[in-house]
Amino acid sequence: MRTIGLKEIEDIALGASLLGAGGGGDPYIGKLMAMSAIKEYGPVSLISVDEIPDDELIVPMAMMGAPTVLAEKAANGREAKALYDLVSKYFGKKVYAFMPMEAGGFNSMFPIVCAATLGLPLVDVDGMGRAFPELQMVTFSIGGVSATPMALTDEKGNAVIFETISNKWTEELARAVTMSCGGSVAVALYPMNGKTVKKYGVRDIVTRSEQLGKAIRTVKKSTDKSPEETFLSFTGGYRLFKGKISDVVRETRGAFNFGTVLLDGIADCKGKEAKVEFQNENLSAIVDGEYVATVPDLICLVDTETFLPVTTDALKYGKRVLVVGLPCFPLWRCAEGLELVGPRYFGCDTDYIPLEERFEEVK
Amino acid sequence: MRTIGLKEIEDIALGASLLGAGGGGDPYIGKLMAMSAIKEYGPVSLISVDEIPDDELIVPMAMMGAPTVLAEKAANGREAKALYDLVSKYFGKKVYAFMPMEAGGFNSMFPIVCAATLGLPLVDVDGMGRAFPELQMVTFSIGGVSATPMALTDEKGNAVIFETISNKWTEELARAVTMSCGGSVAVALYPMNGKTVKKYGVRDIVTRSEQLGKAIRTVKKSTDKSPEETFLSFTGGYRLFKGKISDVVRETRGAFNFGTVLLDGIADCKGKEAKVEFQNENLSAIVDGEYVATVPDLICLVDTETFLPVTTDALKYGKRVLVVGLPCFPLWRCAEGLELVGPRYFGCDTDYIPLEERFEEVK
Repeated sequence: MRTIGLKEIEDIALGASLLGAGGGGDPYIGKLMAMSAIKEYGPVSLISVDEIPDDELIVPMAMMGAPTVLAEKAANGREAKALYDLVSKYFGKKVYAFMPMEAGGFNSMFPIVCAATLGLPLVDVDGMGRAFPELQMVTFSIGGVSATPMALTDEKGNAVIFETISNKWTEELARAVTMSCGGSVAVALYPMNGKTVKKYGVRDIVTRSEQLGKAIRTVKKSTDKSPEETFLSFTGGYRLFKGKISDVVRETRGAFNFGTVLLDGIADCKGKEAKVEFQNENLSAIVDGEYVATVPDLICLVDTETFLPVTTDALKYGKRVLVVGLPCFPLWRCAEGLELVGPRYFGCDTDYIPLEERFEEVK
Repeated sequence: MRTIGLKEIEDIALGASLLGAGGGGDPYIGKLMAMSAIKEYGPVSLISVDEIPDDELIVPMAMMGAPTVLAEKAANGREAKALYDLVSKYFGKKVYAFMPMEAGGFNSMFPIVCAATLGLPLVDVDGMGRAFPELQMVTFSIGGVSATPMALTDEKGNAVIFETISNKWTEELARAVTMSCGGSVAVALYPMNGKTVKKYGVRDIVTRSEQLGKAIRTVKKSTDKSPEETFLSFTGGYRLFKGKISDVVRETRGAFNFGTVLLDGIADCKGKEAKVEFQNENLSAIVDGEYVATVPDLICLVDTETFLPVTTDALKYGKRVLVVGLPCFPLWRCAEGLELVGPRYFGCDTDYIPLEERFEEVK
């Protein structure tokens, strides 16, 4: 057990924003909300997965919807208590601890807001090890864990509880309500006992976010390597492309941000042009007509100077970015994992080839 | 207290189908379901509003969605128990009796199915005295009663509980889920204590349906008057038009059936042509360009020979119908009532004028 205070928040938000792979919401708004909650209620206890008793109730907390909407219509603070009350009432059992569902600028911060507000611990684990756009896309789905009972609330005070026959149906019905509520809502889902979290969760993800955040913040202090080399080395990332954004096509549909960003190669970049497609998160990277990376591996765009992650809602013409590929959590690479989050699910016309293999081919 | 058996079902279904004012679902499917439930579980006790203890929990049960969808995808029998369990669990209190939410071919029968299946009494009351398309359109809304907690389930086994900030929001969110579930679902809403039901409910509506049904069935046995005169006399109806259907325009949108039916005058009809607009239920009747009736008064189309009600999902080119106006439950005529269900709400460009006044003008 250790404590998350204002200092840790900065790094966690920054690192998680990289792991968001373009999605997971605005890191700035999330950070402000978490800081404000910690200032009001005090620091949050971060416990490791092994510290949770097997039979206690653990609840992932997240915001659902389109990141562009979330940036304008975030949570207002009453959601944490409302979701806690709904879950406790429906279960007739108290929540032992919260956890993030995904890594991302906003969705790594929201569970901290909830933990601070309710005085509960946060578990150092999530269900993706990155961000994904749909709610059935968690490692717990591979383990057959139900997303329901799921609680949902909006900033106006509407509340909904779902009990569905599959996690795909949860996504379908919750998405319909999210759209009717204006495009973003707060949710508590995949309520699980400690034993299940231990079995399928992506461990130590909060700590990894914090380490990544700290490293990004200090990337230019390294003296023996170039900042870019330093960045690639501590993230374990593959250099996919370096370019200037020449076009962004964006569409908000079904409470998702869909889109494509086009890049023209710059400086020491091998390729001439690149295309990154996204649904909230970046799905695939194509350089000069060839796939170089796809989901479930992480495709992250970072500023070429500051190495700060650029989320899909912040893409702008003219911005210079480094496109980096990070290997995903290994469980995603099993057949059930690829059925949930592989390139074919998202309509990309390619089988999944792990980043490591793609880059071996190149050599 | 009296008992509803197979004999009563026939008449209740028929009479309620007239009160459905074109909506409320298919009377044939509803009747078959209720008969099958009574054959399996035995007859249902019908209790009057005055027999309910003030503090007991009464729950209206209904199917929500587009009648054309409902006709193809009705309930499969497990909905009653599923809704009962959801409501009882959420309230931590047992349901004392069910009641219909509206009068209509299907929605008068569904609560009987529920009462038979669960062995609970049915209360002789509803919240409309007719059918309306949206769920906030009940007399209980005038009394400030909340539609939530509301339970919803589909035939596949998905379940949702809503707690909303207004009945309009309940409609909005439940409608979105209804569409995602394929266009029709079963719902339990406006859970109330006996005292509230007594204050705002439309009393004796099941009995009135039964009397109307019996009268329609025997309309041709009268000897002193023509069948049409007999029909108008026992329904208290106004003869708005008599014609042959020359066109039906229908659109299913937002889990509603929207449409217009055009009629050419026949026989002893005064007008040349008429137009009836509907949203699940008939909303307005226009004869030779002039409004002759609008919501909340009931506009009912019945077969010119059999006097059987013709629901909006059964409208067909060439069919000969009598268009009859029936005065609505008086509470609908107050300012709050007209705000909920008056012609302006549905986009008709006219103020509400009660049927009785319109026909006084004519004289």
